[in-house]
Amino acid sequence: MSVLLCLTGCDEQEWAQRFKQHLPNLDIYCWSDPSVPNNTQLLNSLTHLVAWKPVDECLQKLTSLQAVYSLGAGVDHILNCKSLPNVPVYRLVDSDLTNRMSEWVVLQALFHLRQMPAYMQAQSQRQWQPLLQPAATDVTLGIMGMGVLGKAAAKHLTALGFNVLSWSRSAKQIENVKSFSTQQQLPAFLKETEILVNLLPSNKHTHGLVTMELLQQLQSDGPLKAAVYINGGRGATQNEADLYKALTSGILKAASIDVFENEPLAADSPLWQLPNCFIFPHVAATSSPITASKIIASQILSVEAGETAENLVDTTLGY
Amino acid sequence: MSVLLCLTGCDEQEWAQRFKQHLPNLDIYCWSDPSVPNNTQLLNSLTHLVAWKPVDECLQKLTSLQAVYSLGAGVDHILNCKSLPNVPVYRLVDSDLTNRMSEWVVLQALFHLRQMPAYMQAQSQRQWQPLLQPAATDVTLGIMGMGVLGKAAAKHLTALGFNVLSWSRSAKQIENVKSFSTQQQLPAFLKETEILVNLLPSNKHTHGLVTMELLQQLQSDGPLKAAVYINGGRGATQNEADLYKALTSGILKAASIDVFENEPLAADSPLWQLPNCFIFPHVAATSSPITASKIIASQILSVEAGETAENLVDTTLGY
Repeated sequence: MSVLLCLTGCDEQEWAQRFKQHLPNLDIYCWSDPSVPNNTQLLNSLTHLVAWKPVDECLQKLTSLQAVYSLGAGVDHILNCKSLPNVPVYRLVDSDLTNRMSEWVVLQALFHLRQMPAYMQAQSQRQWQPLLQPAATDVTLGIMGMGVLGKAAAKHLTALGFNVLSWSRSAKQIENVKSFSTQQQLPAFLKETEILVNLLPSNKHTHGLVTMELLQQLQSDGPLKAAVYINGGRGATQNEADLYKALTSGILKAASIDVFENEPLAADSPLWQLPNCFIFPHVAATSSPITASKIIASQILSVEAGETAENLVDTTLGY
Repeated sequence: MSVLLCLTGCDEQEWAQRFKQHLPNLDIYCWSDPSVPNNTQLLNSLTHLVAWKPVDECLQKLTSLQAVYSLGAGVDHILNCKSLPNVPVYRLVDSDLTNRMSEWVVLQALFHLRQMPAYMQAQSQRQWQPLLQPAATDVTLGIMGMGVLGKAAAKHLTALGFNVLSWSRSAKQIENVKSFSTQQQLPAFLKETEILVNLLPSNKHTHGLVTMELLQQLQSDGPLKAAVYINGGRGATQNEADLYKALTSGILKAASIDVFENEPLAADSPLWQLPNCFIFPHVAATSSPITASKIIASQILSVEAGETAENLVDTTLGY
């Protein structure tokens, strides 16, 4: 009847305070508290784990675990842990998180559509230089991965006029969005897509999916003159050596990338210095302690009550 | 029964071709055709003028003019002509133009909300540096000028979560937008506004409105820590010396400016080199020959039929 927070890279104390507000009858412990990792008796009593980033060391010590809750929409960091016992894993669906991903995806799509890199370059040379400007309605944007985040982004993008396509494991019925699914339909999806938005979860089906071979299939003679790649999903779904080749050979006009095969992105990665590659430190949609603690606390209370909480992960699908 | 195109900075021949398609029974002439400006007989017969940028020289010679049509949403370039006769002036309302302005305003609002300048700066130093990120729902954005363009932008911005306020000559009823009007309500509007979007028309009431005194009244202790200024309207509404002072003194955190007191912006303007000022060469919403020629042709046909066309300008209000 107690909760452990193991939140690498987050302020666990801030999160603990939020959880205490929502779970006044449960004890909340932080993995970063030096007295916790070696207190075997305590660890054996902990029933709920709220996790962010791989938590293998922690999982090995939790013998009474009932469920694991992800601090984010993705759960690959949890499912990839070798010591994960056979317990339910829950993911976070938070409208705040969804909105933030929409903000980021819409920003990146418009940033490239409206040629901001070229205007910033012209400004650095004090050049007043209008460019031919395709409208959003002229451009086709394809979203890979059409869960809660993809659907929300699609809604804003179609409202702005983009022609939006989706590619996902199963076919979807979404207003104004042409749906593709299965490996067979991937080439047709890519052929029409000029701006590719990757919001795929990381699992065995998506691992390393975005390769040079895939990028070469994108629309190359559309209004933007070459394809644009935007990744707000998971770094494990892309081959970064291929991305570098695509960005330096003209296969890709530009990219905005928030997630990488290894994070933080190594300081010697050649991607940092590419003028057509815009790098973000996994910030597209960061969970807010204010909203997320409330939602996860509610999942914990459902499990405490013997129920299945909302947003249970299908571990065979990985989301 | 003939039309003159006087479109400074545009490809008049391309526009002429479009107009010929929609007005097969009218003769179309271009001011840039060397045989036109000195052909008094021809000029005395021309009845319709499609205009972009000041057209004083041209207006002086058109003795049979029935109406003037603006290539853009703004008509200040026409109304400011000293030789404008007492004829109807029509402005362009084109959903393509409206969408393009929405693209640009949404892009600039998200660009500053999501701290892209700071992330680009971090990237240049190969730094993986997540920043505290307020959500759009935490931020209040105020739009000055709430015509067709302002309303469309507001719709997208509220959908993305921004708290949107408007300030305009007359009070407006717009869903999810708190409306302010009159000079008396301007201070209250500014006090709540952290991102100020200027979409005002240029007229005697708005001339030089955006001064240091006005900018100092914006919200300075909000989630973004200092106010942001976005101008996609008209340069004559702002005092650029004051903008420079505001951007260098911390009164403004940043700005995105598409329009200037004098265009093109002089190469020696100090604004070019400010790292927190993003300059665009009047491209936020450029009329497309494809869509705009059709709409203006329809206005011309109405006038030819003895009717008042849509979007007649009230010259006392300037829009």
